[in-house]
Amino acid sequence: MKIDILTLFPEFFSPLISWSIIGRAYEDNKIAINSINIRDFSQNKHRKVDDYPFGGGSGMVMKPEPIFDAINSVKNKNSRVIYLSPQGKKFNQELANELSKEEHLILLCGHYEGIDNRVIEHYVDEEISIGDFVLTGGEIPAMLIIDAVVRLLPGVLRSDESFIDESHYNGLLEYPQYTRPREFEGHFVPDVLLSGNHQKIETWRKEEALKATLLKRPDLLEKKTLSKEEVVILSKIKKDLEL
Amino acid sequence: MKIDILTLFPEFFSPLISWSIIGRAYEDNKIAINSINIRDFSQNKHRKVDDYPFGGGSGMVMKPEPIFDAINSVKNKNSRVIYLSPQGKKFNQELANELSKEEHLILLCGHYEGIDNRVIEHYVDEEISIGDFVLTGGEIPAMLIIDAVVRLLPGVLRSDESFIDESHYNGLLEYPQYTRPREFEGHFVPDVLLSGNHQKIETWRKEEALKATLLKRPDLLEKKTLSKEEVVILSKIKKDLEL
Repeated sequence: MKIDILTLFPEFFSPLISWSIIGRAYEDNKIAINSINIRDFSQNKHRKVDDYPFGGGSGMVMKPEPIFDAINSVKNKNSRVIYLSPQGKKFNQELANELSKEEHLILLCGHYEGIDNRVIEHYVDEEISIGDFVLTGGEIPAMLIIDAVVRLLPGVLRSDESFIDESHYNGLLEYPQYTRPREFEGHFVPDVLLSGNHQKIETWRKEEALKATLLKRPDLLEKKTLSKEEVVILSKIKKDLEL
Repeated sequence: MKIDILTLFPEFFSPLISWSIIGRAYEDNKIAINSINIRDFSQNKHRKVDDYPFGGGSGMVMKPEPIFDAINSVKNKNSRVIYLSPQGKKFNQELANELSKEEHLILLCGHYEGIDNRVIEHYVDEEISIGDFVLTGGEIPAMLIIDAVVRLLPGVLRSDESFIDESHYNGLLEYPQYTRPREFEGHFVPDVLLSGNHQKIETWRKEEALKATLLKRPDLLEKKTLSKEEVVILSKIKKDLEL
C-alpha cells in the first residue's frame, strides 16, 4: 500500500516510520509512506497557503490551488483522497478494514482554520472524522488512520500479534491479563489463572470479557449477536451484580 | 500544565513540541511535556518489560513493576493518571475541557499486547478510549488528547484562532469557507459571500451550518437545543431538500 500525506508539517510524521509495528511494515516494504508539504505547491513568493475568508469572519482559510496541485502531484486512478475533518464519517474498525483494501491513500491534513470548500466538494473522495473533539489539524488523525489500517495489511502482524484484533472484531472488550509476579504490592493474580485447568480458565475469561463489556460499554452488547452460552453467562453476571 | 507520558517509545513524541499551536504553547512555557521510557524502570538486565500471560494464550503482557515505578517517579497528589485503552470512557470535547483544568496529567501508553490488570485496577485513575478501532499502542491517542487539551488552556490560542472551538461547542458543524480566487477550475465562490451584505451572509452561514449538520451528522441536532430561528431555518431546509 502507498500512503501520501499532504500536510503543512511533513516532519511531524518522521517518527512514524520507525515506530513499532508500523516501522517494521515500512522496513519490510509492506508500505510506502511519504509526507508532502502543501507549502511546496504555493505560487506565492512568501510560500503563503492561506488567505482571508470571503464574507468576513475571523481566521484564515487554506487556498484551493496549492492543495489541488499537491493532490494532483501524487494522484492516480486508484487513489482514494481522504480529508481529515470533524465533519466526516466516523472512523471505526469497519472503515479501517475497508481502507486496508485500497492501493493508494492520499490523506489531506487541513489546518484548524479550514480549507476552501471547493477542494472538499470537487477533489476529495470523502471526509473522515476521528471523533467529536477539536484538534489543531489533521496530522494526528492521519497517523491514527495509518496505524489502524497498516496493521490490517496481509503479513504485517505476526501470528502472535493478530489475536488482539480478532478479539476486538468479536465485539466484546478484552478479559483482564496478568503476568508475573503472582503477588505485586499485595495484589494477587486470580487463582483460576494459576490452576492449570484450561476449561475453567476459558470460562473465566469469557465471563470477564462479558462483565467488562456490560460494565464499561453496554452499547457493544446491544450491537452484538450473543451465542446461547453468552446469554446464559450474561444473565448469571447480571444476577451476581444485582443488575 | 505538566504532562508526563509513560511509553516504550519516548522519541515518538519529539515532533509534538515543535508542532504548530502545541509547539507555541511549549515555547511559551504554558505546558511542560516529558516522555518517559517505561523500559528505564525495568529491573531486568535485558531491560525486558513484558512476560507471558498467566493462564496461557498468545501475546505478551506488560509487567506491573516497571509501570508502577514509572508512575511513582512522576506522580504527586495533584496528578491524574490516565491509561489509554479501548476499554475506556470515550474521549470527547467535554472530557477535554475537564482535563484542561488539571495541574498534572500522566498519560500511560500501553502496547497492543496489554498490561497487567493490577496496574489498571490500583494505580490508574481512569481509562480513556479514543474510539472503536485497534491501534498499536496508546501513543497516538495520547498525542490526540494532548492536542485537544492544550488548545483549551488559558492563553494558548490567539483570539483569531479560538472561534473554531467556539463554533464546535455550539453543537453544529461549520459552514463552508471560501477564499480567493473567486473562480477556481470552473468552480465559483457563492455569490452571497461577495455581496457585502452582512445580514445575508450571516443568514446563509446559519443555513449552511444547519444543512451540513442535518446531512452529515443528524445525531448532533438531536442533542442540541435549537433556537426558534434555527427551527424555522431547519424546516425550510428540510422542505427544500424534500426530506
